[in-house]
Amino acid sequence: MSLFRRRRRPRANAPHVTPRSEAIAVARVELEDLTPPTPVYLGQLGYLTLILFENLSRAVILAPTTEAKTSLSRATAEVLEAHEGLITEMRGSGIDPIAAMEPFRTELDDFLRRTQGADWPETLVTCYLTGGFLTDFFTGLAAGLPAGLSQRVSLLLDIDKGQDALVAELRGAIEASPRLASRLAMWGRRLVGDTMLVARSSLAIGGELPGEERIEPVFTELISAHTRRMDVLGLTA
Amino acid sequence: MSLFRRRRRPRANAPHVTPRSEAIAVARVELEDLTPPTPVYLGQLGYLTLILFENLSRAVILAPTTEAKTSLSRATAEVLEAHEGLITEMRGSGIDPIAAMEPFRTELDDFLRRTQGADWPETLVTCYLTGGFLTDFFTGLAAGLPAGLSQRVSLLLDIDKGQDALVAELRGAIEASPRLASRLAMWGRRLVGDTMLVARSSLAIGGELPGEERIEPVFTELISAHTRRMDVLGLTA
Repeated sequence: MSLFRRRRRPRANAPHVTPRSEAIAVARVELEDLTPPTPVYLGQLGYLTLILFENLSRAVILAPTTEAKTSLSRATAEVLEAHEGLITEMRGSGIDPIAAMEPFRTELDDFLRRTQGADWPETLVTCYLTGGFLTDFFTGLAAGLPAGLSQRVSLLLDIDKGQDALVAELRGAIEASPRLASRLAMWGRRLVGDTMLVARSSLAIGGELPGEERIEPVFTELISAHTRRMDVLGLTA
Repeated sequence: MSLFRRRRRPRANAPHVTPRSEAIAVARVELEDLTPPTPVYLGQLGYLTLILFENLSRAVILAPTTEAKTSLSRATAEVLEAHEGLITEMRGSGIDPIAAMEPFRTELDDFLRRTQGADWPETLVTCYLTGGFLTDFFTGLAAGLPAGLSQRVSLLLDIDKGQDALVAELRGAIEASPRLASRLAMWGRRLVGDTMLVARSSLAIGGELPGEERIEPVFTELISAHTRRMDVLGLTA
């Protein structure tokens, strides 16, 4: 496992704004033997990347400036690459991608509807927080996949560049309209509940939800990473 | 110019559905000396690829099946690659991409609003017809760019795979609901007017619109390609 575990980096003054390493490290250790069978994992993550794409593309559509549009379109391309990579992995493993993704459609479409946000800043927060939380979570679960696949999927989920673009746009929007901060803080708190439900339901696939004592450390760390993401924006979690 | 003129292929039973070669060949010959200065060309095309992206991402969002979503997301990735490639070309030529794209925002946002369609099948038709027409047109104009750039831009605009995906989804939708055909035929006829206006305004940049006798052969051929695209769907142009 040590091959895949990332080194902890000091976060306080880190120029890189995506606070995911600790969460991933903990999630990889704790989730390793809770990973669902490969077709289930890839199918769910395949549909989830479509959802992340839909949110990001809505952020591009709603963006008020050419600069924001082109910067967010790069974030969108990154998530589309992850989606295509997952489709390729499914095909390579003899898994029908459509059949594998289909069972997750209703739940994730519903998640999309509940979390899409009322305007551009809320949509950006959704992309940043749900994208960050769920890629941390699925990168953790990837620890239990067969070795080569585990590494390739973790690379596909490394969407830091897109997260940086989201942070830059959000900081700009909050600076331009400071009153926005309290509304977005409230929105961020609401999102974490819906996002955790998606993650928890992944752990229940193919059987009982594991005991709370098993999954509590993971969620504690994922929520800490969520709080750090809010901090990066200057919002109170 | 014969280097660029592609051989005519019989269309009736052609397995490849994108009827662009003739239009491009004619456009390359006729438009070569009407190409605007490089920053203008790249700026306009850069913003246009954002518009094509927005239409395609709306098609993914509205798609009724997982299969359609994942297939159209590939078409979307293709257009995003073109957009990123154009940004890279601008940076490489010392052109500020945002400043170069900005002048085209109002007109193209307006074009987007007028052509986005009322539902999923209309949006698909918009992606297929306006994407096809305008990439043919800009591939033609690319003939007048400096040699290396001309070739790279033409490659970026080669969005045949995405067009094939659009045709497959549209054929499926029309088969499932034959009454759709007449509504989509009407929508296709409406789109060609708005799309031609965008192309004509490109030719007027930096001076007078060239005389009708100069541009008529180009538009005649672009409209023939439009008609062939409608034929591919079984729609009357």
